[in-house]
Amino acid sequence: MADVGTSLIDRTLANLRSAWRDISVSARLRSGNGVRPDLPADDRERLRKQMAECLEARGGEVSARARAADLGRVYLSLSTAGKRRFLTTLAEDFAVDRAALDAAIKGLEGAKGETARLAAERHLREVLVPPRVRLLTQFNDLPEGVKFLVDLRGNLLQETQKSAALADLDDDLKDLLTSWFDIGFLDLKRITWSSQAVLLEKLIRYEAVHEIQSWADLKNRLDSDRRCYAYFHPRMPEEPLIFIEVALVSGIADNVQALLDESHPAEDARQADSAIFYSISNTQAGLGGISFGGFLIKRVVEDLRNQLPKLKHFATLSPIPGFRSWLMAAIAANGLPLLLPAEDAAIAAAVSLDKAEPNLKAILASAWADQPALAEALRKPMLRLCARYLVSERQGDRLLDPVARFHLRNGARVERINWLGDRSPKGFKQAAGMMVNYLYRLGEMDSNHEAFTGEGKVAMSSDVRALLKV
Amino acid sequence: MADVGTSLIDRTLANLRSAWRDISVSARLRSGNGVRPDLPADDRERLRKQMAECLEARGGEVSARARAADLGRVYLSLSTAGKRRFLTTLAEDFAVDRAALDAAIKGLEGAKGETARLAAERHLREVLVPPRVRLLTQFNDLPEGVKFLVDLRGNLLQETQKSAALADLDDDLKDLLTSWFDIGFLDLKRITWSSQAVLLEKLIRYEAVHEIQSWADLKNRLDSDRRCYAYFHPRMPEEPLIFIEVALVSGIADNVQALLDESHPAEDARQADSAIFYSISNTQAGLGGISFGGFLIKRVVEDLRNQLPKLKHFATLSPIPGFRSWLMAAIAANGLPLLLPAEDAAIAAAVSLDKAEPNLKAILASAWADQPALAEALRKPMLRLCARYLVSERQGDRLLDPVARFHLRNGARVERINWLGDRSPKGFKQAAGMMVNYLYRLGEMDSNHEAFTGEGKVAMSSDVRALLKV
Amino acid sequence: MADVGTSLIDRTLANLRSAWRDISVSARLRSGNGVRPDLPADDRERLRKQMAECLEARGGEVSARARAADLGRVYLSLSTAGKRRFLTTLAEDFAVDRAALDAAIKGLEGAKGETARLAAERHLREVLVPPRVRLLTQFNDLPEGVKFLVDLRGNLLQETQKSAALADLDDDLKDLLTSWFDIGFLDLKRITWSSQAVLLEKLIRYEAVHEIQSWADLKNRLDSDRRCYAYFHPRMPEEPLIFIEVALVSGIADNVQALLDESHPAEDARQADSAIFYSISNTQAGLGGISFGGFLIKRVVEDLRNQLPKLKHFATLSPIPGFRSWLMAAIAANGLPLLLPAEDAAIAAAVSLDKAEPNLKAILASAWADQPALAEALRKPMLRLCARYLVSERQGDRLLDPVARFHLRNGARVERINWLGDRSPKGFKQAAGMMVNYLYRLGEMDSNHEAFTGEGKVAMSSDVRALLKV
Amino acid sequence: MADVGTSLIDRTLANLRSAWRDISVSARLRSGNGVRPDLPADDRERLRKQMAECLEARGGEVSARARAADLGRVYLSLSTAGKRRFLTTLAEDFAVDRAALDAAIKGLEGAKGETARLAAERHLREVLVPPRVRLLTQFNDLPEGVKFLVDLRGNLLQETQKSAALADLDDDLKDLLTSWFDIGFLDLKRITWSSQAVLLEKLIRYEAVHEIQSWADLKNRLDSDRRCYAYFHPRMPEEPLIFIEVALVSGIADNVQALLDESHPAEDARQADSAIFYSISNTQAGLGGISFGGFLIKRVVEDLRNQLPKLKHFATLSPIPGFRSWLMAAIAANGLPLLLPAEDAAIAAAVSLDKAEPNLKAILASAWADQPALAEALRKPMLRLCARYLVSERQGDRLLDPVARFHLRNGARVERINWLGDRSPKGFKQAAGMMVNYLYRLGEMDSNHEAFTGEGKVAMSSDVRALLKV
Repeated sequence: MADVGTSLIDRTLANLRSAWRDISVSARLRSGNGVRPDLPADDRERLRKQMAECLEARGGEVSARARAADLGRVYLSLSTAGKRRFLTTLAEDFAVDRAALDAAIKGLEGAKGETARLAAERHLREVLVPPRVRLLTQFNDLPEGVKFLVDLRGNLLQETQKSAALADLDDDLKDLLTSWFDIGFLDLKRITWSSQAVLLEKLIRYEAVHEIQSWADLKNRLDSDRRCYAYFHPRMPEEPLIFIEVALVSGIADNVQALLDESHPAEDARQADSAIFYSISNTQAGLGGISFGGFLIKRVVEDLRNQLPKLKHFATLSPIPGFRSWLMAAIAANGLPLLLPAEDAAIAAAVSLDKAEPNLKAILASAWADQPALAEALRKPMLRLCARYLVSERQGDRLLDPVARFHLRNGARVERINWLGDRSPKGFKQAAGMMVNYLYRLGEMDSNHEAFTGEGKVAMSSDVRALLKV
Repeated sequence: MADVGTSLIDRTLANLRSAWRDISVSARLRSGNGVRPDLPADDRERLRKQMAECLEARGGEVSARARAADLGRVYLSLSTAGKRRFLTTLAEDFAVDRAALDAAIKGLEGAKGETARLAAERHLREVLVPPRVRLLTQFNDLPEGVKFLVDLRGNLLQETQKSAALADLDDDLKDLLTSWFDIGFLDLKRITWSSQAVLLEKLIRYEAVHEIQSWADLKNRLDSDRRCYAYFHPRMPEEPLIFIEVALVSGIADNVQALLDESHPAEDARQADSAIFYSISNTQAGLGGISFGGFLIKRVVEDLRNQLPKLKHFATLSPIPGFRSWLMAAIAANGLPLLLPAEDAAIAAAVSLDKAEPNLKAILASAWADQPALAEALRKPMLRLCARYLVSERQGDRLLDPVARFHLRNGARVERINWLGDRSPKGFKQAAGMMVNYLYRLGEMDSNHEAFTGEGKVAMSSDVRALLKV
Repeated sequence: MADVGTSLIDRTLANLRSAWRDISVSARLRSGNGVRPDLPADDRERLRKQMAECLEARGGEVSARARAADLGRVYLSLSTAGKRRFLTTLAEDFAVDRAALDAAIKGLEGAKGETARLAAERHLREVLVPPRVRLLTQFNDLPEGVKFLVDLRGNLLQETQKSAALADLDDDLKDLLTSWFDIGFLDLKRITWSSQAVLLEKLIRYEAVHEIQSWADLKNRLDSDRRCYAYFHPRMPEEPLIFIEVALVSGIADNVQALLDESHPAEDARQADSAIFYSISNTQAGLGGISFGGFLIKRVVEDLRNQLPKLKHFATLSPIPGFRSWLMAAIAANGLPLLLPAEDAAIAAAVSLDKAEPNLKAILASAWADQPALAEALRKPMLRLCARYLVSERQGDRLLDPVARFHLRNGARVERINWLGDRSPKGFKQAAGMMVNYLYRLGEMDSNHEAFTGEGKVAMSSDVRALLKV
Repeated sequence: MADVGTSLIDRTLANLRSAWRDISVSARLRSGNGVRPDLPADDRERLRKQMAECLEARGGEVSARARAADLGRVYLSLSTAGKRRFLTTLAEDFAVDRAALDAAIKGLEGAKGETARLAAERHLREVLVPPRVRLLTQFNDLPEGVKFLVDLRGNLLQETQKSAALADLDDDLKDLLTSWFDIGFLDLKRITWSSQAVLLEKLIRYEAVHEIQSWADLKNRLDSDRRCYAYFHPRMPEEPLIFIEVALVSGIADNVQALLDESHPAEDARQADSAIFYSISNTQAGLGGISFGGFLIKRVVEDLRNQLPKLKHFATLSPIPGFRSWLMAAIAANGLPLLLPAEDAAIAAAVSLDKAEPNLKAILASAWADQPALAEALRKPMLRLCARYLVSERQGDRLLDPVARFHLRNGARVERINWLGDRSPKGFKQAAGMMVNYLYRLGEMDSNHEAFTGEGKVAMSSDVRALLKV
């Protein structure tokens, strides 16, 4: 390496070593000048060598970790293409050693006696863990190492379609993060208006169900008749992993605009009989496929019951994200009428047409909710079709609606479909303004879960069941 | 035991479920009545079934974890024999499925194309992870789950000699704990007299080098011219994993009694030029083989340099645990004289004998340090032989002295052997009252490490080197 | 009291006793129905009796405090008129007992011997402390008792013009708060974007110099090249008492819009040579006349010097609130020309008039800063007059400008007047767009203070001095 | 001041200024060489001048405070005699200005109109506050200023008998501390084995009722069936002001050795029906006469009731410090027989004497508790006389027993006298081994307090009342 001085990687490393000492990842990224290197072929080879040195642990594990951290900083400084090359190097050049694997399988086949057999199995298992896993672990020495790996996986998930090796690397990283984000390590914390601004700011950024419009909107969601809980990892104390917003009200809420109305005075939480989970958001793309939601809901229910003994009902007020898409596809796909004749007639009359069903797409795209007669004509068929969509429509064995799947898997039941429960543009677009309550009943959650995961049986209230009978 | 209701396990579980809700592990154990069940055969079968249910995750993962936690409480309630049976059940009944393993190997051999090959490798890797690993992970839901697993491994390590299956289980558990106790997750914290009593009490219990005699002794070790640091896991905040005691003094200390003298007034730490590491203790038997010491020393050096810029020397004042055993064995084993003729004569004269070497065992067992002439005669040969023991004596490639191995591996050098550096009974018994300083020099730690781990080369000062030349 | 049940006060008290148990003051006030009682005469008499009972400490001091706290809640529930009546009752009915005062003076005159004399003096002093002071102290038992008293004084200060008794009560309360808010009790804390939202919200509310427009504006003021410090009372942890905003920059800043520009990237604070205090705001009306500003500035300087050793200059960038009012009044009042003939001619030329000075009001009210020639013509005379206003213009002995008085009293000097340093409407309105730097120089602050408070001498730079020479 | 350099005070000040910057008060005192200056006359005059400069606030209040803090350090460095001279200077040279006082009284007499009258009263009140009060306040700027003043008063209280001026200074300081230690500022905190060692060490030092023998004894008093609470001042966070030790047991405890028995296993606190206050200790001599005990007991009762709803009884197990002294004095003083004839006879028989009463002193000084017959003979008369001592014996209006006065004043009643409740030497010496329970009953505390403080009426149980009837 005669030209060390001119190598991009080396220069970057040298710059970074001094520059990074006291600067946090996010600060540096923000103030960067935007010109990020792409990692050309020469540098990729240089990078490979440096990765290899980390794995050899030259100078001891402490020094190796420090060098791995430097590599992590190089990664952060790269362009998207550069990052992909970095990850590809890691995936391809530090994969399972197949010669060693073949030898290990042979060794297993030849092992005599239980002790030798167990040793051979363990050796085989070790050979199957690619060296890159150790390097990923070494990145943990970065000041925000856990967040680094989560974000790295966020990047990686964008690329896994492109190569089998990258998908394989993702499997490694997912395994590592699954171990490190075991629910036993996470802290469930309540978030209030007394929480740090740097944390509250994240809620605004990450809220995925009902967008937070402003700090005033956020403050309303943290008022005395609201609760917000999140899981945190001890090494990412300012990053909620998943959070849930709860309203404490009288009766099971049927309308989300009412809940989000900032002008509504706070009620007395100690008198509320219902806890309504109206928003659950996962925040870290890099934790995709690692699930905390079931734990979150059950532990929040537990905490609320301890704090507020008058609470009797624990229910969601949930969106129905795929209803309208399904409905339109169903109309387009099969000729079968979805509407009953009487329903069709009533809707058609309200819009002065001959037939409703062929025009349903246009009708639902109109401002129908402002026309009382039309809205009334739509009400019953929409509720009926929505119930059908939620509890019966499947792709293979799998229910179509992802939110329904999540809550049913957790042991909830489909309790009530709420007509015009969400009058926002998003609400109309997703589900013709409907929302649904999933009810968590203490005594039946385990059996609901078993019935759902075992036989695919969906728990529901008698009202919802009634909607299904044409 | 036909009627489940009378099963010991079931009763224990039932009792525990109510009793455990608010009681911490330690409190319960202390107040137990001492009669602990042994887990007879019937119960072992029942236990196996319950373990299987946890792994099937009946009622969902949240419920499965709660049941695993109950199993963990059963484990804690068992006698030593009962615990061994519990662990054996886990080890034997939830090991790798060998039929599945054979099938997976066949699958790998038949895989066509890179994607299929990668999938087959991953499947093989999954099959090689025994189901018991998942159950171990589920124990993490206990209120002090991480500590539970560490202590469980502490128990397990007592039994691994007894069966290959238990040794294999230990390998699994060690892998799990190695991942969970990655240095990147640990907190380095300073411990002072303002720390919690519940924590300081642990230092007294765990100190392994120079016993802490009393709270007054402890307070002296936390005085303004001392420092104490420990690593902590975020889920075991009251349990130091390893801790180090440092004295801030002028000149490299050569005598441990002077350091531990409670009547000595505190010096001004800001004027000290030397940081003396005079005690490092690992605390958790269950983390055996998972090493934090190298990181601890290097990060403490870093922190001290930032806090106290006048510090120039970072050195240990260490025991030499195996010197006298080696010396006695060497005399017994080979006929070769260890003492030079002049040395032998001088010692012999001091004790009015003809020959010293054959009587060395008796001489060293006497109160020789109180006899000035004898002590003087012993001085030079003991220092010489000690240097030889520390830097040259090996079993195979491995240096005999474990403390020397640890510090040399970390990149320190053998700096100075201190005559009568430890006048305690333990000091005389281990090393004829000698102690040694290992010196950590910033610029040379990596190369020392490489030379030691690569070629077995021991770094040392010129003074120590001089001692080796007869 | 036949009609106890119907008394407004009693009913209010009864309601409050149950309602208040767990509700904080602010929450209750917000959710109140807005109908607040006015405290009619009957109730005033009832109130007087209850105040008397608190002072008698019936049932012991613990119970008396609890009753005083109830009275405090009554106070909070009253209308403005009701509050005034409450305060008047306290002021008039629990004032110094004049008969006892006369007796005490007689006692003093008759006291024989030093011991008797000292006792008589002390007795006189006790008699001079009105009973209401004890009741004010008892309010401290409210959950937010200190804040209650501060706010009560805030109310009281609105009324002191109306009666001598209320003004006298205010003197008592000011004495009490002066003792309780002694600087030795206050905590100086740094405020960052990691502080609690509930606290940051207060900065937005209380900022008095350069309005905070939004949470994004606030975040910019807490960026890595900014510092914000506040004093807190241990019993009002969410209420800053006074806060200061500091920019860390290169060179002494001359323009506030540049400092407040959110789009400006953060500089490296560790390289800055100047700390610019660009905003200081008192927050509690009820602490009027109790000053923390001098301590705040000096302790912030101290902390910044420790944290950032490259800082060389500590200066304000301050408004000049009274310049333009003084200028207009000066023109109106005396016939003397303020502008020199050449200055007048240049300005007049730029606006095509014969004479500038008589039209100066109109000229300054125009958008003159957008007219380069006019702005250039105004520059020199405005700077000159501003210097004169700041350092020479007095009412009696007192300098006219309050900000100048504050900083000069603290030992700063007038360093530089910045032309167009504040182009906001407020900046033009107050001081024709000018701002001033006051410089805090470590070695000369005490002597500057002495010269200013003793002889009224104003410290200034040679540049400012030069401006004064016509 | 020609000889500035040779002045002891100046030298001390100069030394202190540099030495004190970073060293806490306690650290410095410990490492001092023990030679403390006595403050000779020259220095006293110099001191007076420096005090005067602080009061003039030369260089501004910030600088004046810094100088006052230096004076405080001088004070700390002085010998006992030096401290007395320092305090005497403060007391005598900065007392009320009598000429100003006379003038103020004249001004009051001549004041016309309400406003002038109020102003004159206020002026008189200001004149009556000696300048030294301001200097005392300025000491608050020391790093541990509040503790400094508390300790200074501790010193002062040793000297107040010696001069009227010092007693007068103490009155000032007591007023100041009464205001600063208002109960509304104090934090009630629970102390546990998880508290800081530096804090727990203070409990060992300050325990005044039943000496804490060791850290193990302390740990037992903080076990899961015990509670310990203390009040803290926000500026003295490591110094409990008063603390109380509580045992949670079944039934009202009658024996303190049983409570303090370290070998006794902890009971389940949640099942306890009684909270026994078995030790209350004031810790700061310098807060003498400023009482927190009543608040402490009532707030602890409140907290315990919230935490442990099964608690029904709140009672003390208290010493009876003056019983035996009173008994001996009563026998010596009047010829009247204290023992009834039958009692006397029974005791006399047990010791083979003719008469018991004249020998009671000797009998009680013997190991009588080990002689069953004698103990039985003493039982009834001692209980009877103890009841009489506790509820009837007074000096003037005041009950003799200080512990009885404290609890009765707080609204408790005398519940039960416990025979052999304290078998320690101290227990026998104070009260022939008896202890007493004072019972706090929620509904009657206010009326008990009123009856006791108003009419001197002592609340007691029917059992105690029965003891009084001969």
